[in-house]
Amino acid sequence: MTTTTTRSVVLASRPVGVPQAEHFRIVESPMPALAPGQVLVRTIHWSVDPAMRGWVNAVGNYSEPVAVGAPMRSFASGVVEASLHPDYRVGDLVTGQLGWREHAAVDAAAIDCKVDPHGPPLSASLGVLGLNGITAYFGLLDVGAPRPGETVVVSTAAGSVGSAVGQIAKLHGCRAVGIAGGADKVHQCLDVFGFDACIDYKAGDLAGELARACPDGVDVYFDNTAGPISDAVMTRLNVRARVVVCGTASVASWDPIPMGPRVERHLLVKRARMQGFVIFDYADRYGEARAQLAGWVAGGRLRYLEDILRGIEHAPDAIAGLYRGENRGKRLIRVSEDPTAPVA
Amino acid sequence: MTTTTTRSVVLASRPVGVPQAEHFRIVESPMPALAPGQVLVRTIHWSVDPAMRGWVNAVGNYSEPVAVGAPMRSFASGVVEASLHPDYRVGDLVTGQLGWREHAAVDAAAIDCKVDPHGPPLSASLGVLGLNGITAYFGLLDVGAPRPGETVVVSTAAGSVGSAVGQIAKLHGCRAVGIAGGADKVHQCLDVFGFDACIDYKAGDLAGELARACPDGVDVYFDNTAGPISDAVMTRLNVRARVVVCGTASVASWDPIPMGPRVERHLLVKRARMQGFVIFDYADRYGEARAQLAGWVAGGRLRYLEDILRGIEHAPDAIAGLYRGENRGKRLIRVSEDPTAPVA
Repeated sequence: MTTTTTRSVVLASRPVGVPQAEHFRIVESPMPALAPGQVLVRTIHWSVDPAMRGWVNAVGNYSEPVAVGAPMRSFASGVVEASLHPDYRVGDLVTGQLGWREHAAVDAAAIDCKVDPHGPPLSASLGVLGLNGITAYFGLLDVGAPRPGETVVVSTAAGSVGSAVGQIAKLHGCRAVGIAGGADKVHQCLDVFGFDACIDYKAGDLAGELARACPDGVDVYFDNTAGPISDAVMTRLNVRARVVVCGTASVASWDPIPMGPRVERHLLVKRARMQGFVIFDYADRYGEARAQLAGWVAGGRLRYLEDILRGIEHAPDAIAGLYRGENRGKRLIRVSEDPTAPVA
Repeated sequence: MTTTTTRSVVLASRPVGVPQAEHFRIVESPMPALAPGQVLVRTIHWSVDPAMRGWVNAVGNYSEPVAVGAPMRSFASGVVEASLHPDYRVGDLVTGQLGWREHAAVDAAAIDCKVDPHGPPLSASLGVLGLNGITAYFGLLDVGAPRPGETVVVSTAAGSVGSAVGQIAKLHGCRAVGIAGGADKVHQCLDVFGFDACIDYKAGDLAGELARACPDGVDVYFDNTAGPISDAVMTRLNVRARVVVCGTASVASWDPIPMGPRVERHLLVKRARMQGFVIFDYADRYGEARAQLAGWVAGGRLRYLEDILRGIEHAPDAIAGLYRGENRGKRLIRVSEDPTAPVA
């Protein structure tokens, strides 16, 4: 290593709601020292996920908020540059909770898995073969429990979670109906991901389009948005429907809690279930999901798109951009050379 | 039989929201004729239940609405006066979906069970040993799935469902916390039904009282009310909490759907589940619940209170009265002599 300093993107101040570029700052610091048992990873891709909003907000959450001044928490992929742990060698490709840091000295527990250099590109380990695909897999199959012939509706359908949900639903014999914003994303859902129907919620007739797209009602709703999109879906639930509450992308702030149409009567009359889902609860089963997802990707049955921003300077605004809906596919920041990238 | 006419209470017009006295009319008609396989029951008690609001409203529901001009749908108990069915004899005590009719000629399918004349009073077959107790039993144990040491909160805690929920929770080793309206009902919950704590939601500090009554949070919420009471409980759910949506007594009308604080974030962060529950789905397991409940009643471990209005003329206003909160215990209309009633 000739580099003596390294950069990271730290939380500069605590946002309320969606973190904007000004809530982050790029800082330079000395290269981290390795403690016994640790691994030094040069990161290649940083993941950008809607859930990161929750990680920086002060309100009660499923994990402690990122401290102001600390590097942003994130999943990332990279290559091992030094190792004081017997399981890792220089040159190994890995993915894990490495944070928005060019170089991360981490305990082995922070590494989710090694990545096969001869398999799909490293970047896929952060998307369809990473937390997004795994979220789709367990959220749909474990919480949503779809049966062949049922109708599965998913919001943010063109996103990295939503697109996997729709395709996994199809692989299980369901009718997959997406909800996405704008004609581009709708076409992506239909043409790239093979949804049976996809609704543009920005086009103005969500209720009518839902009725047409779901002539037999909705059996599973994989909810990534909350808000008015979900309110419309709730009115079409079938008896014993399952609503998987996975994300709330359409709600700008939960402080104070925004108002919406009450759900109790829908749930009661339809004996429906609405259940929150946090992927970290499935950590000990990630391997099972990865193996299944990798098989589908290899067989061409599970497709994915990526939206790769090149350069650390894109990181501060990247989460806000997700919430502006500007990405097409899984958003990543590429901060160093990717030895596995296909030649463009 | 010397009677040649009989009376019933019919739906006179369709209400929006809670049916009031003017939505019903007492009518006289000829005694019904028995078809082969039918049973003629002289009814003794008519049940009055919050769910009856849903049965007369036009909005989508779990059963067809009662037709205008038809006798009100209801559970009732009575004595067999004539039978063209081999399983029933004159003098048998029965309970079932007999409607608000002094005499009901029904198929055997409308009869839920025969009542042992040597067991608890016949009236109990409509409350603690009837749909209310059975609702508490399956709603709490099957949907709520409480574990010993957990905190179970129930709204309308002094009511016939709520009081059974609290007592069954205690029988399963849980902390039982009731929410009721007014000091009388609170004392009933504490002194008669043995709740660990009971909150008067009319006293003005629901959030503070909930925090004090549930120092370890809420694991199961059996929701009979929806509305602001439930909104307060939702903020105190524990990780993996279960919300049993059993009734919506506090919401005057669902047309249009009223607004309330959104629940998605609570459910997501707490990986909690909110599930609608309709007792009729458990029809093939009523016997199991009745046997268990009867054992608890006989052993003095499950107590109940009754609010018996004497005379058919009380029926039209009886549902509205429930929603005004005027009853103390399970509300029944007694329309003829009860051979099993304890001598007062």
